[in-house]
Amino acid sequence: MNKIKGIAASAGIAIARAFILEHPDYAVSRKQADDVQSELAKLDDALAKSRVELEAIKARTLAELGEKKAEIFESHLLILSDPELIDPVKDKIRSESVNAEYALDETAAQFIRMFENMKSAYLQERAADMRDVTKRILKHLLGLQYVSPSEIDEEVIVIAEDLTPSDTAGLNRKFVKGFTTNIGGRTSHSAIMARSLEIPAVVGTKSVLSSVQSGELVIVDGMEGDVIIHPTEEVIAEYTAKQQAYAKQMEEWKQLRTEPTVSKDGIHVELAANIGTPNDVAGVLDNGGEAVGLYRTEFLYMGRDKLPSENVQYNAYKTVLEQMEGKPVVVRTLDIGGDKELPYLDLPKEMNPFLGFRAIRLCLDRQDIFRIQLRALLRASVHGNLRIMFPMIATLAEFRAAKAVLLEEKDKLAAEGIAVAHDIQIGIMVEIPSTAVLADVFAKEVDFFSIGTNDLIQYTMAADRMNEQVSYLYQPYNPAILRLVKMVIDAAHREGKWVGMCGEMAGDAVAIPILLGLGLDEFSMSASSILPARSQISKLSRADMERLAEQALQLGTAEEVTQLVQSLQ
Amino acid sequence: MNKIKGIAASAGIAIARAFILEHPDYAVSRKQADDVQSELAKLDDALAKSRVELEAIKARTLAELGEKKAEIFESHLLILSDPELIDPVKDKIRSESVNAEYALDETAAQFIRMFENMKSAYLQERAADMRDVTKRILKHLLGLQYVSPSEIDEEVIVIAEDLTPSDTAGLNRKFVKGFTTNIGGRTSHSAIMARSLEIPAVVGTKSVLSSVQSGELVIVDGMEGDVIIHPTEEVIAEYTAKQQAYAKQMEEWKQLRTEPTVSKDGIHVELAANIGTPNDVAGVLDNGGEAVGLYRTEFLYMGRDKLPSENVQYNAYKTVLEQMEGKPVVVRTLDIGGDKELPYLDLPKEMNPFLGFRAIRLCLDRQDIFRIQLRALLRASVHGNLRIMFPMIATLAEFRAAKAVLLEEKDKLAAEGIAVAHDIQIGIMVEIPSTAVLADVFAKEVDFFSIGTNDLIQYTMAADRMNEQVSYLYQPYNPAILRLVKMVIDAAHREGKWVGMCGEMAGDAVAIPILLGLGLDEFSMSASSILPARSQISKLSRADMERLAEQALQLGTAEEVTQLVQSLQ
Repeated sequence: MNKIKGIAASAGIAIARAFILEHPDYAVSRKQADDVQSELAKLDDALAKSRVELEAIKARTLAELGEKKAEIFESHLLILSDPELIDPVKDKIRSESVNAEYALDETAAQFIRMFENMKSAYLQERAADMRDVTKRILKHLLGLQYVSPSEIDEEVIVIAEDLTPSDTAGLNRKFVKGFTTNIGGRTSHSAIMARSLEIPAVVGTKSVLSSVQSGELVIVDGMEGDVIIHPTEEVIAEYTAKQQAYAKQMEEWKQLRTEPTVSKDGIHVELAANIGTPNDVAGVLDNGGEAVGLYRTEFLYMGRDKLPSENVQYNAYKTVLEQMEGKPVVVRTLDIGGDKELPYLDLPKEMNPFLGFRAIRLCLDRQDIFRIQLRALLRASVHGNLRIMFPMIATLAEFRAAKAVLLEEKDKLAAEGIAVAHDIQIGIMVEIPSTAVLADVFAKEVDFFSIGTNDLIQYTMAADRMNEQVSYLYQPYNPAILRLVKMVIDAAHREGKWVGMCGEMAGDAVAIPILLGLGLDEFSMSASSILPARSQISKLSRADMERLAEQALQLGTAEEVTQLVQSLQ
Repeated sequence: MNKIKGIAASAGIAIARAFILEHPDYAVSRKQADDVQSELAKLDDALAKSRVELEAIKARTLAELGEKKAEIFESHLLILSDPELIDPVKDKIRSESVNAEYALDETAAQFIRMFENMKSAYLQERAADMRDVTKRILKHLLGLQYVSPSEIDEEVIVIAEDLTPSDTAGLNRKFVKGFTTNIGGRTSHSAIMARSLEIPAVVGTKSVLSSVQSGELVIVDGMEGDVIIHPTEEVIAEYTAKQQAYAKQMEEWKQLRTEPTVSKDGIHVELAANIGTPNDVAGVLDNGGEAVGLYRTEFLYMGRDKLPSENVQYNAYKTVLEQMEGKPVVVRTLDIGGDKELPYLDLPKEMNPFLGFRAIRLCLDRQDIFRIQLRALLRASVHGNLRIMFPMIATLAEFRAAKAVLLEEKDKLAAEGIAVAHDIQIGIMVEIPSTAVLADVFAKEVDFFSIGTNDLIQYTMAADRMNEQVSYLYQPYNPAILRLVKMVIDAAHREGKWVGMCGEMAGDAVAIPILLGLGLDEFSMSASSILPARSQISKLSRADMERLAEQALQLGTAEEVTQLVQSLQ
């Protein structure tokens, strides 16, 4: 037995066999084929193996996840036998005497480019299918060993160096019982996704990938941040009990699903969820979310070769708005840059990306990108209760410029005769200290604030939240942070505006009593934190919490604040 | 004629021929020498050439700069003919049959190591001399073309990719009339040094190095940020007139040298200077500085192979304190990390160094380094009016920890019977937003604050001040910055403590009226800005400026603040 300590990233206990996830290298080079027949035979063999594989996956998916999820593999099978793809590949092998993998890669790339340039969202999605099928055939041609995370079909714990957003988006909750990675922190994207998918996860272990063999039994304790490899019978029994206790607690929380969020003294606050893709909405509703407080639109732009079209975006926004059935959906415009890169934008390398050219700074410069997103949002606005917010606003001039672009696009749509909702609230993220300090000035011009604590803490303390050597400075309970939060809330309320919070802090049990006391209107968190938070708030009196917050604001250190809140219990 | 736009880094006009500064590569590899006699002859030849060169430099320096400055070259000549160095080199060539440059490099390295490990500061300085002489001989052995900036002996404008702190420290103001670089910004070290040396400079031109030929006539306009290459007669005449007007203005300012700094309505404030080395003190006194408001101790640690010893540091601190003759000297403890690296510390590469492991964060972790500096400071404290401040304080816990280390070292010195001043004020830099927001709590424990605006602006606006793509966010006049400054001053005054400012903003003509109005007690700036600032303050009424500052705090944007101040004139 071997116990590795990491960072608790998503609550719950998972016990299953290890699945090692490593990305293969699909790079292909052109080679002269001495024996054209043998290349053609290689191709046929790879096509046949891919077909057998896809038939099996399709059958399994149909049985376990239903017809709709199985459809995607049906369309993969169609591509595999489409003469429009396969014939040109064979022609190329023959006419140029080249190797099969090169002929396939080149031919498929042409089709993918063609599909991507189509106006129809349906055909654009075919480009993604074509890419997946090509990879599958190449895998066989190149003799690579690889199972994509979306194809996992037995209960496992995924072990990886790190998980990309598209890896986590593809994880099947039915089979992936938990995951653990070498790198990342509590606020890295894989951690946020794990909480959204309600998969227990431990990240930042540094060494788990080299410590586990594929197939070994592993326990992931997402509350304590422990990974136990090859546990003894006794330890398995202990964690099975812990798992059951956690499930029971979850059951109790589920009873609060349809209840409103009300403090002991009758004050209602809104509990909302942070989401990354339309797929996350089901989890929000399952957990009794009253709104989407933060829809991160970056995922639409990631894991692709080029910018998403207006229609691809429109469809995603429309889906979320419709599924939320009139409940508020706060969409954050593109927050790219910093730790989130888009290879196809080819942005310059920066010395300090967290203090660099990102989010609204990039969007105001690259208005071609920004305007497409705003058009898609405005068109989708008629399908629900849309609110738009701009990230990384540091100055009033930036907010005014961003709002002006939005209103211009709205006018253009009106001129084109396209319907747009007329009650869209326009707000900003408060995640830069200058904006918190000037909140009274901003409050006269915005419709709402959403405090992004992850960045606000990082900038206020001047400490990179991903840098372990200064992680002791990532202090949500530092009185300086609480004072900035108070400034923002007081300034907004004086102008009759509402304030949400969409950083990790909003779902944190130590922070919630203080935030309630400071008068926060909306708490937006991982869907899985909503029910525990609702339970916690129902036991607190806001009047008492106001006094608690007043005390906290006068303290000198984060430790003193933690002690004050813990003295409540 | 060709005009290049850069960043105005240091005021004044320079007109002179271009001197291209490029660092040669002294790398040496071991080679088998087939002909030992020829290697010995090569060495003798290089020694002879070095001697001729040094005799010439010595004669010139004696004639132009006096006996004291010439002494250093006398000691270089002594090293050159020292049998204790030269004999072992020759022995090595003979016994190992190796090339002369390798034998020299290896032998000299041994001596340098030996000198560096000596306790005496005098012998430690011999290591630097030995390094210089070795480079000179190697230059001839390797056939390199290079004149070090300290040896420039005709009036020139230095043109370089960038200047290192040791390059700028070696510049001779008599001959180097100005400089211009491809990279850097207004707050880069070369720019700060230029202002301290009062050399006109334009930095960040991107292209000047490739646009100028050595020996071409160049004009550097350090007010407008212009570099003019190969100017016409007409343009030379225009700039000569501009140069004379500037000199006349400087003369008027010089009259204020011995005056105190008093506003029109009789309020005294202190005008202090920022310095980097003991050599800068003469400029402070020449410009009528009332104190050293920031002594950056990093330069003691830079351009070396290892940490400076306690004695090397003690001598530097003592020199500054003595030369300031009882006027206050605020020493900032080591602020390394971020953009200032020390190769010999081998710190890990960081994703966002400005939000990383630097300054007090590093010193509290590497107390071996920190305690040596504190001992040196405490020992020097009896030689003048020492004040100590800690950089990058983000939390009260950090300040308490740093102060505790200082008091421990003080007790140890007392136990050793070493005299230490008992009235040393202990303060902090306020350059992180959290500390500005919690200034009232800090004010109960510190003796003073010094607001470091360069970093405070960078963190408050979340914009890397070295990154050109977000340079529009480096806004000293943003009302958020002014509000934080006010918070700090008000909090300090309530506890009867004083507040200085040692960022670039303290010497800025637009900021000074507002800072005076906010009640700032000490303004610390480049020495060359002191007299213009004294002249400006003498024409302002603090009572009026208080009203101005009140108005500025209510504005929304930096532009509005600039307009408000400009409306004064």
